[in-house]
This record gives sequence, structure tokens and C-alpha cells, in this order.
Amino acid sequence: MNKINSFAVLGGDKRLIYCGRSMQEDGYSVFFCGFEKCEEELSAEPCKPIELINNCDAIILPLPCTRDGAFISTPFSDKPLPVSLLAEAAGFKPVFCGMSEKLPFSGKNIFDYSRVEGFAAENAILTAEGAIELAMRETDNTINGSDCLVTGSGRIARVLCSMLKGLGARVTAAARNAEARVLLKAEGINAVSISDMGNRYDIIFNTVPSMLFDRKILKALEGSPLITDLASAPYGVDINAAQALGLRAVRALSLPGKTAPKKAGIIIKNAVYHILGEEL
Amino acid sequence: MNKINSFAVLGGDKRLIYCGRSMQEDGYSVFFCGFEKCEEELSAEPCKPIELINNCDAIILPLPCTRDGAFISTPFSDKPLPVSLLAEAAGFKPVFCGMSEKLPFSGKNIFDYSRVEGFAAENAILTAEGAIELAMRETDNTINGSDCLVTGSGRIARVLCSMLKGLGARVTAAARNAEARVLLKAEGINAVSISDMGNRYDIIFNTVPSMLFDRKILKALEGSPLITDLASAPYGVDINAAQALGLRAVRALSLPGKTAPKKAGIIIKNAVYHILGEEL
Amino acid sequence: MNKINSFAVLGGDKRLIYCGRSMQEDGYSVFFCGFEKCEEELSAEPCKPIELINNCDAIILPLPCTRDGAFISTPFSDKPLPVSLLAEAAGFKPVFCGMSEKLPFSGKNIFDYSRVEGFAAENAILTAEGAIELAMRETDNTINGSDCLVTGSGRIARVLCSMLKGLGARVTAAARNAEARVLLKAEGINAVSISDMGNRYDIIFNTVPSMLFDRKILKALEGSPLITDLASAPYGVDINAAQALGLRAVRALSLPGKTAPKKAGIIIKNAVYHILGEEL
Amino acid sequence: MNKINSFAVLGGDKRLIYCGRSMQEDGYSVFFCGFEKCEEELSAEPCKPIELINNCDAIILPLPCTRDGAFISTPFSDKPLPVSLLAEAAGFKPVFCGMSEKLPFSGKNIFDYSRVEGFAAENAILTAEGAIELAMRETDNTINGSDCLVTGSGRIARVLCSMLKGLGARVTAAARNAEARVLLKAEGINAVSISDMGNRYDIIFNTVPSMLFDRKILKALEGSPLITDLASAPYGVDINAAQALGLRAVRALSLPGKTAPKKAGIIIKNAVYHILGEEL
Repeated sequence: MNKINSFAVLGGDKRLIYCGRSMQEDGYSVFFCGFEKCEEELSAEPCKPIELINNCDAIILPLPCTRDGAFISTPFSDKPLPVSLLAEAAGFKPVFCGMSEKLPFSGKNIFDYSRVEGFAAENAILTAEGAIELAMRETDNTINGSDCLVTGSGRIARVLCSMLKGLGARVTAAARNAEARVLLKAEGINAVSISDMGNRYDIIFNTVPSMLFDRKILKALEGSPLITDLASAPYGVDINAAQALGLRAVRALSLPGKTAPKKAGIIIKNAVYHILGEEL
Repeated sequence: MNKINSFAVLGGDKRLIYCGRSMQEDGYSVFFCGFEKCEEELSAEPCKPIELINNCDAIILPLPCTRDGAFISTPFSDKPLPVSLLAEAAGFKPVFCGMSEKLPFSGKNIFDYSRVEGFAAENAILTAEGAIELAMRETDNTINGSDCLVTGSGRIARVLCSMLKGLGARVTAAARNAEARVLLKAEGINAVSISDMGNRYDIIFNTVPSMLFDRKILKALEGSPLITDLASAPYGVDINAAQALGLRAVRALSLPGKTAPKKAGIIIKNAVYHILGEEL
Repeated sequence: MNKINSFAVLGGDKRLIYCGRSMQEDGYSVFFCGFEKCEEELSAEPCKPIELINNCDAIILPLPCTRDGAFISTPFSDKPLPVSLLAEAAGFKPVFCGMSEKLPFSGKNIFDYSRVEGFAAENAILTAEGAIELAMRETDNTINGSDCLVTGSGRIARVLCSMLKGLGARVTAAARNAEARVLLKAEGINAVSISDMGNRYDIIFNTVPSMLFDRKILKALEGSPLITDLASAPYGVDINAAQALGLRAVRALSLPGKTAPKKAGIIIKNAVYHILGEEL
Repeated sequence: MNKINSFAVLGGDKRLIYCGRSMQEDGYSVFFCGFEKCEEELSAEPCKPIELINNCDAIILPLPCTRDGAFISTPFSDKPLPVSLLAEAAGFKPVFCGMSEKLPFSGKNIFDYSRVEGFAAENAILTAEGAIELAMRETDNTINGSDCLVTGSGRIARVLCSMLKGLGARVTAAARNAEARVLLKAEGINAVSISDMGNRYDIIFNTVPSMLFDRKILKALEGSPLITDLASAPYGVDINAAQALGLRAVRALSLPGKTAPKKAGIIIKNAVYHILGEEL
């Protein structure tokens, strides 16, 4: 495959802007398309996507590259960028994207940077810290000295427990997985099974993508906890029921893109570079 | 002294509102004065301060009670509340206030809740966590994995180092005190003397109230750190020089009242109760 | 299956003694066989294994139950206890053992307590802390402030990194697994790939059961580190080469049975109880 | 004062051996006296103390330099080394010693290395880690997961709390000082006043040098805790009463000299060098 000298960044949020800019600092030519509404200056004369696709050595799509399978995610643009534009290009130049399974086509030149080993873990850290930033902002209390519940035992839950403990919270981890509970206990976390998770907390962080906090569980909560749902669809907190019950509940989607877009952009860049080094 | 059944809260920020409300939940009658601009409902019909002072069993003033020695601090009111109103009352009923040395008079009924043992440490925790919330909000990166510098070796610095490390930052503590450095090192913090503090950090937290980060030091900083000055007057960062150099520098005053007013209010309440138990 | 009222403990080290004793405290009748050389008083009149097997409701074998497939492990006895004694009994009463794959027979009444979820993790904690106890004893220095290397990314490595960091060591984790490295970094551990692991440490803990520290790697080590090999066969440190090079190298086998036999015995007991609750 | 090229090390335990050896590695001539019973080879032909004192540029005495005010502490020798030998020498060459207040004379050439800023804190770390090594050795359980009580709020208590928590223990700190309690709580330690310290622990570490654990308190303890007394005279645990009650109680004296003599020796050396740099 030919040497890569230029990238086209098509769509995405601030993460993709930081990703592209950092590539520029590394010496690549990077062109942006789909960011008209972005307040940042991207030296962007109106682009014609198809020209960009033809003229660049490689293309970078956002994470996720598309939500509906038809159009590239472009939160900073109202002009639709059809996914189909890439179908042909992907035949002869590399296309880097996140969550490629959402694309309606595949090919040997389509590389999913979200599958690079370590990528999910790096983003879990950003999500965990973003959840803490969110909780700090949403409450008039401190994390320090508060009673926090973290559900789940995946990467986000593990990192979140460690950070909350590091801030001086009393952390209870409710997890189905017995081994995960043992290892969390080893690190001084009060780990219990889901059925023993208790109902009195200052802040609840859900990471389990299944309806754990339904109306019944929400109704049994004492005090007035802040409930943050970090899980992806089908989510784990019944937000409507929570609001009906007068509880503060927040669905926290795409935290890395909101609370740490620069770091998240660098992680995308490094994953792309990793693929370039390994695959090309 | 007579039993206390009612408090008048005269002036102050959200901390004092939370303090008074929590006292209400404890069964006390609490009346607020000096909060007209506060969006919260304080069931407050227009109060006449002098009547309130006369009718209540005890009076609570804010922290600090006054900045100019003439008027009580009332950020939520434009009506001046002269300190002199209290001069007489303090002769026959308890007045609880913060930083009583700023009052133009003293007396055996004036109790400074900010001097209760542990009060300063409790607020140092709030300041440390508030500084972290501020840093998270001001950057597009994470604390996790970043290089942080904390200057000083007092309570705030100590708690801040512990929290930053708990979030996964690489922490350097620059302190004059050799013993403090040894104890910080024991806890895994890279502790150095001020003269060895280096110049390449992502986030700098100053807690030393003397001009440590003058123009010369600021100019030598590499990268583009966020600089937060947590020190009280005469402060430790030359904010003007920083801005002239294009550095992001923030003076973070009264963090507890901004980032954790509820917890800060409870701390004031507990200190008042402590005095009530000890002294009265 | 009938209710269990009595257990026979056949062979094993101090863990099995603590296991049986704790069962006695819980109200079970427990009989020991194969502990003649143990200094502890086990109220043990000379036992006839076959009578014990016949008279008890259930049988507990050690961890591992056998090393050679022919005889039960009996470090506290010189009288051979043939594994074959159990072959018949296992047909009609439960036999609890560790590492049942080493038995020359199997059956639906043979329960392997070492496979209970969480058992391996519980023992990993004991191994990690045992390794620290060993390192403290073997050196005239402190863990605090020392440079430690931990190889591997399994349970033992993870817990060991956390504990060493908690003691104030500078910890480098060398792991093949990129995701594990990311998560270790998130917790403030300096995680690197095996090829980048460096050669200057005070204490090295190997958990990888493949010959990582061969003569060449050992020869390149600077300073005079203590090297502890926590891996099971085929081990990860060439002990002979280390000694020839004048390095202090220790193979640390069965640490839980040596440094925390009481806790290890309780873990076996709980695993047996778990099986009793689930399976019987 | 003249340049120092040679030191005489008179008496002391393994710390002083390591101190002297490390000075040799730094290029100094070092002569040892009072170590005949030490198994280590000190290339020591029988020394005449007075000749050594006369021929060396400076003298190093142990920590403490004397226990009775008459003889230098020489645990590795049966030949008495009278303190008086130094009285004259101290008039014309520097004498470095620990706890100089125990000497029956003083002088401007007598330097107490134990008073160097940071020295006490460095040794507190060694004591804390030594206490953990001791507790690990004395129990058949793990520190991880155990309930530990630490009394006091000085350096040793603070470091010990941090280390025990780092190992995964549940730590209660019982301290008189309210500010210390607040700061310990901020770091996730359950800090209580002495009167609330409870009576059910696996391991108790006393650092308070006054009779806290008298017969009455000891009798009220539940379970069978290991009790370690880290306090210096007049100590804090009634060892006789403990033994009469069947409790395991250990007086842990001079832990740094026992569990980490090498590190302790380097700390002495560095303190001597510090004085040489500052004072001479």
C-alpha cells in the first residue's frame, strides 16, 4: 500500500477535530469536512466530500461512524454526508472508522480503530473520569466522604471504583461476577452481589446495560441520590420513572467526547497509527 | 445561657442557606435575612434585620463575616447589612461567625466557628476536591495520566496530592518542608523542593500564598499547562503575567462555597453545634 | 443426598487443619487423618483411613489432592494414603478436593473446590501478600521507596501491583496484554510491554509461567535485585543460572499454605460450603 | 574545619555497619570498632578505640549512642566502650551521634543526626513497614481483608494507616487530634476518637506512648487480635496483662534496625552528610 501523507476527516465531534489537529502537528496534511457549525477555526473552505475522498490518501470517520447506517454522524454540520460516498473509495484507499459493524458494507480496506487492543480500555478511563466530573458538577456535595454505588464489573466499573476510592468516597461495587468481586475487595472496595446492593447512596453510577434500576428499585432508594447511567443502550436506569419519582437521574452518553475530547482524539489517532504500523 | 431554639442567618452565600436549612431539618426555627437575590425559595417575607436579631436566640454570620469591617457579606442581597447591628446584640446572645478577627468589635458571646478544631481541615478537603472539579472543567484532557504539580505542604496540598494520585495522575509535590516531603514520598508522591519543581506539567495547583509563579517562572513553563491558584491573598500566581504570556491561569477563590456549598454548610452547622455543646 | 454432619480430612498441610477446625467451630464433626507429624494437637487417635472414609458423611482432600496420581499429599505424615482408597467411596458420598484433574478417576460425587468461582482470585490475594511478606523478610531494605517489577497481567500480578503501590513502592508492570497495561496505567502503575521492562530493580516478582528470566536476561540485570518466582511450573526464572550469577533468586511455591494457612483454610471451607449449598 | 576523609564507627547494630559500608563505597575510609560478634566480615583487626578516635577525621556513634549514659551501645560486642572516651575527642573533631541528649556531655562538635529534618519521618516509614512485616509473620492470616486498628496520629500512625489501606485492610485510626482525624478520613481511613475505638480487630498497632491498652481495655477485646506496641517508653500496651489474658502482644522495639537495617543505615549516612554540608 502507498505511503500515507494526507487524511480526510469526515464528520464527528470534537474528538475528531483534536485527532486531525494532532495529526497535523505530526506532519500530515489533514482536511476536515462536516464541521461548519463548529466554533473552532478549521481553516475549512467549503469542501466537496467526494473531491476530498478522492484526493486524500486515507479517510477517517467518527466513532460511531454512523448511527443509522445511511449517514455519517455529523453533529457539527447540517449537510448530510451519505455513507455511500465511501463505498467505492473503500475499495482502493484505507478508511478508518469506529464501530464498523454499523456500516452497510465492509471491505479489506475498512479498519475499525475501536477494535485496536487497549482502545476500549483507554476510553473506559475517559468515561470513568467524565462520570466523576459530571457527578461533581451535578451535586452540591463532595465525592469525598460520600457513599457511592457502582454497578457492573467491566472496565468502566473497575476504573470508576478505583478513582472514587482515590477521591475518598466509600465505594460499594455491585457485580454479578464473583471473581470480579473478590478482586475489587482485594483493593479495598466493598463488593457485593447485585441482590445485596442496598438502597442508600449519595451517588449511583450504573454501568450495566440492562434495566437494573427499574421503577421498583428506584422507588426503594432512600435519601436523594444522584443517579448517573453510563451504560449504552438498552441502558440501565428508567429515566422517566426516576423523574416521575422526583429523583435526579442523568443519562451520560458519549462522555469522552464531552469531558475529554482532546484525550479521546489522541486515543483515536494512536489507534489509527497502530493500524498503519501493523496492517499497512 | 438559655436554651437555643431559633437562629437568624444574616448574609452569606449558598453555604449559609444550606447551613440554615439543615438546622431547620434538625428542628430549629431558622430565619434568613440578606438573600433576596437568591433563586432558592427561603419562605422569606421581607425581614427587618433588627427585629430578627432581637427575636432570635442566636445569630449566624457568614464566612468571612465581613470583608470590609463595615458590612456583613451579602452576595445575595443589595441591601447593606451594617456590622454595627450586631455590636449590641452580641452583648446578650450568641453570635456565630467565621473569621471573627475581621469584626470591628469582640466579646465573650462572639464565637468563631472557623476556629473549631477540624474546621479548616474539613474545608481543605472541599477546596482540594473543588480544585479538581475546576481542573476537569477547564481542560479537554483527563486528570488521569496527566502530570500535575502541587506546591505547598499544608492541608490542601496534602489532600490534593492524595486525590490526584487516586485519580491516576502523576503527581509532583513541591514543598519547602523536608518532613512533609518525606511523608509525601512515603505515600508514593514524587516530592521535591521548590527549587527542583521542574517546568513541564499539564496542570499546576498552587497552594502557597506568596508570589511563587512570577513572570520569570511562568515564562519558563513548557507545554500549555492549566494553572490554578488556590492560595489566599497575597496569592501565588501572577495572573496578569500569565495571561500576557498566553497561559491559562485561574484564581480559584472560595471553592467550597462554589463547588460544594451543601457540604460546606453542614460543616458550618456542625461547628456551630460543637460550640453549642462545648461552650454553652 | 443425605444431610452432611461429619467430614474426614485426609492429608494436606496447615490449610486443611485450619479448614477442618473451622468446620468444627461451625458444629460439624471433623476427623483428621495424615497429620501425625504435625505439632498441633488434633485430638487424633491413630486413624484407620478406610474406617474414617466409611464412617464420615463427606471427605475433604488437600490442594492439590495428589501430586503423583497415586498417593494423597500428606506433608505431615510418612504413612502413605493411596488415592485408590477413595475410588469406591466416591461412588456413594461426596469427596471434595482441589485440582481433581490429578485424580486417576472421576465421578459425579467428586467436587473440585478449587474451581468454585472466586476461589482462584481469593488465593491470588494470599499469594500476592505472601510474596510481599517473603520480600520483606529476604531484604534489609523496605518495599516503600523501592523499585519493583511485576511481570504478567493475571490476578496475582494485578493484586501485587496494587499492594506494592499501596506500600509506597515504584511499581513497573511488564505485561503482554495491551488492555491489562491500559488498566494498570489507569491505576497509576507504570505498565510496559515485556520487551521494555528494563533491567534495574530492587525487587522482581515474576508471575509468568514461562522462562522469562533466562540466563541472558538475568545477566543483564543491574544492581542486586531480589528475584522471586511466583509462577507455577514450568516457572519463569532460571534459579540455577541466577545463583551462578550471584543473584538472590527464590522460587516461592504454595505461598498461601505457608504465609496465610488460616485464611487459606477458611477459603477452602467456604468453597466446600458453597458447593454444598449449590450442588447437594 | 578540616576536610573529612575518614570515619570511625564506634558501636551500634547492623544499621551502623550498613552506614559505614555505604560510606566506604562513597570513597571514605571507614573503621569499625565494637562489632566482634557480628557475623559479617568487617575486615576488622582488633581495634584500639582510643587510637581509632585519634586517627580518624570524624566519629560516628549509634542510635541511641548510649542507653545508660556510661557506655556506647554495642550489641555486637562484649567489650565495654565507655562514653568518656569521646569527651576529649569531641573537643577537636566532629562526633555524629543519635539522641545526643543521652550523652553526659555536650559540645559544639557533637552533632545529633537524629535531629536532621526529615530523619524522624524517614525512620517512621521504616517502623511502619517493619510493623507490617512483623504482623505478617506473627499471624496465619493476611493483612488484606483484616480489620486493623492504629492508635495515635503521629508520623508512624499516618504512614501505617496508608500502608495498611494500600494492602487492602479495613483500617480504623483512633486519634485524639480532631484535625488528624479529618485528614485521615479524607484519605478513606475510618478515623475515630480514642473513646470510640471499638474492641473487635484482627490486628492492633499502638503508637501512643502512654498506657492506652491497660488490663481493662485488653480484657474487653473480642476475638483474638494480635497486638503490637510500636510506642517507645513508657509504652502503650500492658504486655504482662495481655499475656495473662492469653492475648498475643508484642513489643516492637527498634524495628528499623531489625527489619530494614540497610535502609536505616543509609538514612543515618545521609543525615551525617547533610550535617557535613550544612554545618562544616
